[in-house]
Amino acid sequence: MARQSKDLKQRAPSHDRTKADQPPGGGGETRASRPDQDGRQRVVIEGVKPEIDGGRFPIKRVVGETVVVEADLFADGHDALSGVLLYRHDSSREWQETRFQFVTNDRWRASFPLNRIGVYHYAIRAWIDRFGSWQRDMKKRVAADQVSSIDLLVGARLLDESASRAQGTDADRLRRVAEQLRKEPRPSAEQLAAALGEEIGRLMAIYADRRFATTYGKELSVTVDRERARFSAWYELFPRSCAPEPGRHGTFTDCESRLPYIADMGFDVLYLPPIHPIGRTFRKGKNNDPNGGPDSVGSPWAIGSHEGGHKAIHPELGTIEDFRRLIRKAGDYGLEVALDLAFQCSPDHPYVKDHPEWFKKRPDGTIQYAENPPKKYQDIYPIDFETEQWETLWAELKRVVVYWVEQGVRIFRVDNPHTKAFCFWEWLIGEVKRDHPDVLFLSEAFTRPKVMYRLAKLGFTQSYTYFAWRTSKAELTEYLTELTRTEVREYFRPNFWPNTPDILTEQLQHGGRATFMSRLVLAATLGASYGIYGPAYELCEHRAIRPGSEEYLDSEKYEIRHWPIDRPDSLREFIGLVNRARRGNPALQCDDSLHFHRVDNEYLIVYSKHTEDRSNVILVVVNLSPHHVHAGWIDLDLDVLGLKPDQPFQVHDLLTNAYYLWAGSRNYVVVDPQSAPAQVFAVRSRLRTEQDFDYYL
Amino acid sequence: MARQSKDLKQRAPSHDRTKADQPPGGGGETRASRPDQDGRQRVVIEGVKPEIDGGRFPIKRVVGETVVVEADLFADGHDALSGVLLYRHDSSREWQETRFQFVTNDRWRASFPLNRIGVYHYAIRAWIDRFGSWQRDMKKRVAADQVSSIDLLVGARLLDESASRAQGTDADRLRRVAEQLRKEPRPSAEQLAAALGEEIGRLMAIYADRRFATTYGKELSVTVDRERARFSAWYELFPRSCAPEPGRHGTFTDCESRLPYIADMGFDVLYLPPIHPIGRTFRKGKNNDPNGGPDSVGSPWAIGSHEGGHKAIHPELGTIEDFRRLIRKAGDYGLEVALDLAFQCSPDHPYVKDHPEWFKKRPDGTIQYAENPPKKYQDIYPIDFETEQWETLWAELKRVVVYWVEQGVRIFRVDNPHTKAFCFWEWLIGEVKRDHPDVLFLSEAFTRPKVMYRLAKLGFTQSYTYFAWRTSKAELTEYLTELTRTEVREYFRPNFWPNTPDILTEQLQHGGRATFMSRLVLAATLGASYGIYGPAYELCEHRAIRPGSEEYLDSEKYEIRHWPIDRPDSLREFIGLVNRARRGNPALQCDDSLHFHRVDNEYLIVYSKHTEDRSNVILVVVNLSPHHVHAGWIDLDLDVLGLKPDQPFQVHDLLTNAYYLWAGSRNYVVVDPQSAPAQVFAVRSRLRTEQDFDYYL
Repeated sequence: MARQSKDLKQRAPSHDRTKADQPPGGGGETRASRPDQDGRQRVVIEGVKPEIDGGRFPIKRVVGETVVVEADLFADGHDALSGVLLYRHDSSREWQETRFQFVTNDRWRASFPLNRIGVYHYAIRAWIDRFGSWQRDMKKRVAADQVSSIDLLVGARLLDESASRAQGTDADRLRRVAEQLRKEPRPSAEQLAAALGEEIGRLMAIYADRRFATTYGKELSVTVDRERARFSAWYELFPRSCAPEPGRHGTFTDCESRLPYIADMGFDVLYLPPIHPIGRTFRKGKNNDPNGGPDSVGSPWAIGSHEGGHKAIHPELGTIEDFRRLIRKAGDYGLEVALDLAFQCSPDHPYVKDHPEWFKKRPDGTIQYAENPPKKYQDIYPIDFETEQWETLWAELKRVVVYWVEQGVRIFRVDNPHTKAFCFWEWLIGEVKRDHPDVLFLSEAFTRPKVMYRLAKLGFTQSYTYFAWRTSKAELTEYLTELTRTEVREYFRPNFWPNTPDILTEQLQHGGRATFMSRLVLAATLGASYGIYGPAYELCEHRAIRPGSEEYLDSEKYEIRHWPIDRPDSLREFIGLVNRARRGNPALQCDDSLHFHRVDNEYLIVYSKHTEDRSNVILVVVNLSPHHVHAGWIDLDLDVLGLKPDQPFQVHDLLTNAYYLWAGSRNYVVVDPQSAPAQVFAVRSRLRTEQDFDYYL
Repeated sequence: MARQSKDLKQRAPSHDRTKADQPPGGGGETRASRPDQDGRQRVVIEGVKPEIDGGRFPIKRVVGETVVVEADLFADGHDALSGVLLYRHDSSREWQETRFQFVTNDRWRASFPLNRIGVYHYAIRAWIDRFGSWQRDMKKRVAADQVSSIDLLVGARLLDESASRAQGTDADRLRRVAEQLRKEPRPSAEQLAAALGEEIGRLMAIYADRRFATTYGKELSVTVDRERARFSAWYELFPRSCAPEPGRHGTFTDCESRLPYIADMGFDVLYLPPIHPIGRTFRKGKNNDPNGGPDSVGSPWAIGSHEGGHKAIHPELGTIEDFRRLIRKAGDYGLEVALDLAFQCSPDHPYVKDHPEWFKKRPDGTIQYAENPPKKYQDIYPIDFETEQWETLWAELKRVVVYWVEQGVRIFRVDNPHTKAFCFWEWLIGEVKRDHPDVLFLSEAFTRPKVMYRLAKLGFTQSYTYFAWRTSKAELTEYLTELTRTEVREYFRPNFWPNTPDILTEQLQHGGRATFMSRLVLAATLGASYGIYGPAYELCEHRAIRPGSEEYLDSEKYEIRHWPIDRPDSLREFIGLVNRARRGNPALQCDDSLHFHRVDNEYLIVYSKHTEDRSNVILVVVNLSPHHVHAGWIDLDLDVLGLKPDQPFQVHDLLTNAYYLWAGSRNYVVVDPQSAPAQVFAVRSRLRTEQDFDYYL
């Protein structure tokens, strides 16, 4: 029965990790009838949460948060029981412990704080609480006036046993209470009350008999990141388009001049597409022309030339010193530079000559280029993760990451991780974060949901999402509910991008400026982390290469663009307002509290976020229709907002600075996309002054 | 990160089984940077169902059923993949395999048949299907007229590789196709089509390169029982009340005479309360009188006297030969005898003298009797499962079960299993079923839900339920949905009892004969397994010992009763009708298909069960109000019943033999509790004859 399956489990101890050559164990062994555990371990531990895939993967948190753990703890019979949550930072050998508190229906809860980044481990242990059972039963006997001296002696025996495990004053105290219970003819009512009291209960818990405690069979872990893992505003920029004068190839120095502009908008991550030498063979021309020729600048993702590979810098951008200076200067503006990890090679990459064994060879001896039949991408050689030399390959790719970490990079955006072996990512991220736990990885996997979730479980800090294509109220509500209300939230941190250099959605192509505004507000307030590809975004660039395509016309992926960033219709001011609202309101810095409120208009979407103590509550109303004014009655869930039914409260639109006085759950809103397609309200249940109240009544 | 948690998992391989003295592993080990698996294992296997608590427990099935297994199988990139479900009976070393079929969204499905009782194991393996990928891509190239000779050579190479793993004609066939692909200047269109065809695909699948296959890290198992585990009708009877004349202590021989009566009602399990010698010390008198005295017959659950213990027979019932004859005779009537396993002792039990170490001693040296303060049960000594001699205790209790198995008993009803150590039950049931896989155990644990479910996971074949106290439509619907629509159904087989010697519900006390009828129909049609305690049930015994109590007045637990089983108002005929409906309709022999249909009257409950092919469909309508006629419009889910919206169909009440012609989802019913509080319709979508149709139109 189960015992047999357990034996087999031991043969194959972890998920999908069994050696390929080893068949599942054969049957027919002689089975011993000896029990395989101590029969006195009576407590069961099950239903542990959070626990991802049976403990195969860690959950994710950021420093300063707590981990709340729940478990079913129960035993046969009617004995009381005790449980502790054990936890330790990976760097410590010492377990700390905190007691589980009973919730209801055999459910218990405990929590522990995360004071450092890195990895924490947690485990659960529970045992029969003999003294707790004795206290409980004795209280019933006292109430029924049925206390016998034998019952008292039972308690005294337990006290003595614990005393023998205790020392000093604790031991003395326990022995004294035991003596009192043995007093002839009877202990006094006060002495009995003391033996049945909480103080002795707590003391006895410390020195409980844990010989037959059950330890949960799995140790679980938490990856603890710095706060930016949870709360970040990304700005993607092509450095080569940063020259102030049209036509010139931009440099890192030009990027430096752009830093105040980006910082003013309130971003904190500056993400650069690959900065490495660009291959010349099959170099792409403007608008993805396969015959680009020598004059074209090529795609930054066609990495590697005789000038170097993944550890080199494209000479036209500058030098490694320039890059390091850019990182420093960005830091002065509160911006971190994120690099792109695109593990693929142009035919000119040094790896191709030095490590041909890392690429797949065709029968004619040539290297297999990227292909999605019938499409061919002859400027890209994918790396063959099935190479026999995979170990040297993995080691080299790790060296690439460590090299950039050593230059000061702490955030990586990983290009198409879903086309490289999953186990490689788990290993790589584990290796890098072991030595540099402050490094963050963003997964750019626009693929099937289970693959995206798997990558997050394997260790990616944040992940791109389907947000760009979730446009209706129903789509947004359903998707965000999946991300924030299911187990997914324990390991998958969404990062919402309304556009990327690869994604100019149909909605942005046709929705006009109001859509650029509303999509920005949605991304920035639904997601604690979001990003835009600029200056295309703030300049409302909406021209696609052709109808039905999501590719930009004259895409920066294949040419240098000169962006008129000072154009008066730029959204830079608006974006700055939104990012300031994010920075000033902790409610917007976490996704867990997201809650959708009903509104009787399908073009309006209404949701709130709040801090745990509800000292900060944000309510967002977005008009999803770019061309029409929409109005509706909102039906607020007042409990969620921390409001009482009859309580007037102020809502303050952080984008327009307008104030309104509301009361109760039903409130009316009008949203005109031509002025502002969204309202981001701070909800204040305590009006600041009497005047506020009088004025808005 | 995850790698570290894996290391720890290996230290503590299974749930709640870690040695008590061994603290969770300490941290701070030197961590190798070498990958701990072959980097070429690219396929992920996750989301496997069914799988109970991460594979810790087996699922349950009966022989003849199939196990349908689903899993998420996916890899990085765009390669095709293949997976197999491996399975074997525990007695076989050879794994059989069947291919997974793609369902949708990375979900795959496969199934295997259960031809024997005992334990089956199943495992999953999946790998990149290079030839499948090649065929898929080649078809696209053919469509785009882009086939190059190099593409053909890639396929030829794969064919040759597989040929080297194959033998005989298969190897020849693969090599021949490879040669054709290498043909200059080109293979013919037919030859290419053959290489891209299904036949070669199937052949290549057999000889696929599985070197880098992923094997799911857990082997899962299935406990396969005989059919009675799923479908059974129990009748509980006190043998000592079976004498035909009042006042005499009944014997096994008297029980034999009662067999035709029980068999006529259609039961298949005859369950006897403990048949062992009854203790004399503190023997209970009538109506649980603590001062019963020597004349009282005592409670059969106060087991053990100088005449013997759990392996002996109460002399007044007869001899072991009489008991064996009863088992044989019962078999002749299609009845199996189920024994009660009540692991507790009277103070007179031989264990008390021979094995005082198996009991808890109080400080004064006396043995601790059962207690639930302030109540004392001095006639019962609980066994101390925390004894240091637990191993000898377990061995002896196993000998008790094996002894009765050797006498021919194959079903045990286990008294209060939740007050004995969980690990004991897992071990005991595993041990017994290893040698006697046809033995069934019914868990009598009326306790908290998680404890009841845990016992089922540990191996109990069937379980008592809360059915007796689920009386309203909402309660029944919610409870049955939990039992039949959640993971619970994989391991918890409910057995519904409207009464037991301990449970005379308030509803039965006051509801009259109609309630006895409706509760019987509910138990017998909601549950493929159910039981009654008779003749109290068929004689509608409803007198409680006092208001507010569920104890019978003059309970058979403490005295001999003489039951007038031939009383004309007995429900024996009605019960016979219901059991014949169960036997004649496979839909009622399984719980998985249970479906509730809407009806616009809260006193009516309507549900259906059907066989998988819908050749047998049963629709049940029960009036939950014993005193009033209720009528209502049913809104049938026709899809569930296998009916088309415009299709007339016949419903045939198996209890009254009435026929009705219905059509569509809306149908009207009237249920008069005074004639029959329930209708059990066979639903026939093909009317038997033209006459049927004409007559009922």
